[in-house]
Amino acid sequence: MENTHNFFIPKNNLIGIGSIKDLTNELLKWKLSKTLIVTDKNIISLGYVEMIETMLKNLFISYDIFEGVLHSNPTVSFVEDGLSYFPQGLELRRDYNLIISIGGGTIHDCAKGIAAVATNGGSIIDYEGYNKITKPAIPHIAINTTYSGAELTMFSIITDTSRKVKMVIASPNITPFISVNDPMFTTTMPQDITASSGIDALSHSIESYSAMEASPITDSFALGAVKLIFGYLRRAYENGNDMEAREKMTFASIMAGMAFNNAGLGYVHAMAHQLGGFYNKLHGNYDGILLPYVFEFNSASLQEGKILKLAKAMGEKADSKPEAVEKICNAIKKLGLDIGIPHGLKAMGVKETDLDRLSQNALKDIATFTNPRKGTLEDVIHIYKAAM
Amino acid sequence: MENTHNFFIPKNNLIGIGSIKDLTNELLKWKLSKTLIVTDKNIISLGYVEMIETMLKNLFISYDIFEGVLHSNPTVSFVEDGLSYFPQGLELRRDYNLIISIGGGTIHDCAKGIAAVATNGGSIIDYEGYNKITKPAIPHIAINTTYSGAELTMFSIITDTSRKVKMVIASPNITPFISVNDPMFTTTMPQDITASSGIDALSHSIESYSAMEASPITDSFALGAVKLIFGYLRRAYENGNDMEAREKMTFASIMAGMAFNNAGLGYVHAMAHQLGGFYNKLHGNYDGILLPYVFEFNSASLQEGKILKLAKAMGEKADSKPEAVEKICNAIKKLGLDIGIPHGLKAMGVKETDLDRLSQNALKDIATFTNPRKGTLEDVIHIYKAAM
Repeated sequence: MENTHNFFIPKNNLIGIGSIKDLTNELLKWKLSKTLIVTDKNIISLGYVEMIETMLKNLFISYDIFEGVLHSNPTVSFVEDGLSYFPQGLELRRDYNLIISIGGGTIHDCAKGIAAVATNGGSIIDYEGYNKITKPAIPHIAINTTYSGAELTMFSIITDTSRKVKMVIASPNITPFISVNDPMFTTTMPQDITASSGIDALSHSIESYSAMEASPITDSFALGAVKLIFGYLRRAYENGNDMEAREKMTFASIMAGMAFNNAGLGYVHAMAHQLGGFYNKLHGNYDGILLPYVFEFNSASLQEGKILKLAKAMGEKADSKPEAVEKICNAIKKLGLDIGIPHGLKAMGVKETDLDRLSQNALKDIATFTNPRKGTLEDVIHIYKAAM
Repeated sequence: MENTHNFFIPKNNLIGIGSIKDLTNELLKWKLSKTLIVTDKNIISLGYVEMIETMLKNLFISYDIFEGVLHSNPTVSFVEDGLSYFPQGLELRRDYNLIISIGGGTIHDCAKGIAAVATNGGSIIDYEGYNKITKPAIPHIAINTTYSGAELTMFSIITDTSRKVKMVIASPNITPFISVNDPMFTTTMPQDITASSGIDALSHSIESYSAMEASPITDSFALGAVKLIFGYLRRAYENGNDMEAREKMTFASIMAGMAFNNAGLGYVHAMAHQLGGFYNKLHGNYDGILLPYVFEFNSASLQEGKILKLAKAMGEKADSKPEAVEKICNAIKKLGLDIGIPHGLKAMGVKETDLDRLSQNALKDIATFTNPRKGTLEDVIHIYKAAM
């Protein structure tokens, strides 16, 4: 009979064109002295970091910049490099009282790791799994430039290169306290990142909609995001300066992020994490390729009514569950093709001989906990093969 | 071009049947010594307060109980009575490091007032309006027993009896930090409160959906809430122990609360606040009666597409804007009749001779700021008259 849900997100989310300016008012509310900015060289070259530097200077908040997030799947060593900014010894590692991350999911995830280890000690590897981070992290403001949703979630995905595994670190204590979602900061996203992080947002929506912890609250967001993604992702991909499309996609990614932060994910992410750990390519592309195959597998455990609503949100007409499942899977594949997502895992360099080990690791990923249908090792291998 | 929104809610919301038990884990995270419970005699007699007392005792957190919320429209004197629990003098009024409110909107609003004045000083009257509370209030956990949404909003409505005015106090600083929404706590709601707070949730949904600050995020929630209310409010009203209906209505009230907390409200609330200040009856009933008349007035400023979606969420088929507006208004009236909302303002004791003064005051209410259509004094009088 009991059926409980947490709805947990940053208390404050600044959203919309020009919303970056509202950050000054928020910063004024806190007694801040020293901030660590976490970002990468590309974001610096786009001028976004300079904008935040000016804001901090005007408020007399000193800062350092850690620009060592070197590629799109953050590793344990990136987190360690960031931690080197903090004084060592005597367990006193808190020199900064704020971390500001500027970028996409890679950068926010890395910043969450730094913020957590700075106050909790040890190594980021100690915190793999759910709710292992017991002390509050350093307060963190995440300024978003993509559609990953990472700016407002309790998840950090860090690659342990020694094991070739993407660790999932999930804890309310690493949720940023303010997220900033200004579509202006997304206009410079290259086409491949628009596509990859856009289809990632779709996978967040559909996985959370299918997940065991889904509630009417997360369903509202998931369906809302699906409608916007099918309405605007192609436009944002075709013309990065289409501000209406950029704005709508920002809303979509926020809703998708809030949905999966509270409903959980499933096999798409459990399986994509392994591919990222092994082959180190764009996470969202793995998601986009796997999504229709995992959805087809999961559909056996989903109610007809729920599936028909999802088809409708995509603009597809269907009268029965099998028809809806087919149309949903085809619509995802068609969207992927239209925005240049590779045709299959083979095209992304995945090797048939690795599938066994990848499948074993996938079943250990915490994203499996909320998948609606329990699969065997053979099931997972079968899904990987279908997606090749 | 700029178009910014805040999405601001409690960071953590415990939701669902049995979710009250999760509160223990949350309380454990904080160093709490002394708590003030804000409630009323009825809630105590239902045993809900005892449940929280046991929880606090087990955690060695001491507490006092303020049970002086005497009727359903909290007044300045209730807030003052609550503040008498705090030591006076030397501006040091912080003896409690937590306030827990248990009840409906009346009780949460009163607790917000106490929490704000305890740390900000002065009188609650000083904080009428938007964003006047500059210092954080005492941390506040709101345990909800109705459908008001007050457990998760930044609004507190306190009656200044000397002016016969309901003051709107709106500030992010009075948002509870945890809301608890266990449908078990709603099963003892009497029929008239189920009806009144249920139709209040509908007015929150439709007003926020129509409001100037509406965004795709708040629209998703508003439409989600409307669907649930039309699907389950009648059932919750007819049988208070229908747990499915109670659970769905809890979700509806949460989504409606999150929507209006971020999109704002409009004339329904601006006008209902005045009636509450003057005649001191159930707030939700005023809302329910006014809602179709205000919606009809506002529809001139709303896009056809938006109105058609709202009609659909109510289960109404319509092909044009005028048809949809008519069907929406009729569906609201029909729902009100079915759950015993009085037929009109006259039946609630509103006097024609007061309408002039009520209308003047309504136009000063901050809820008017986000109403989509600007009305004259005559317009407001006209709406009141239509709803008589």
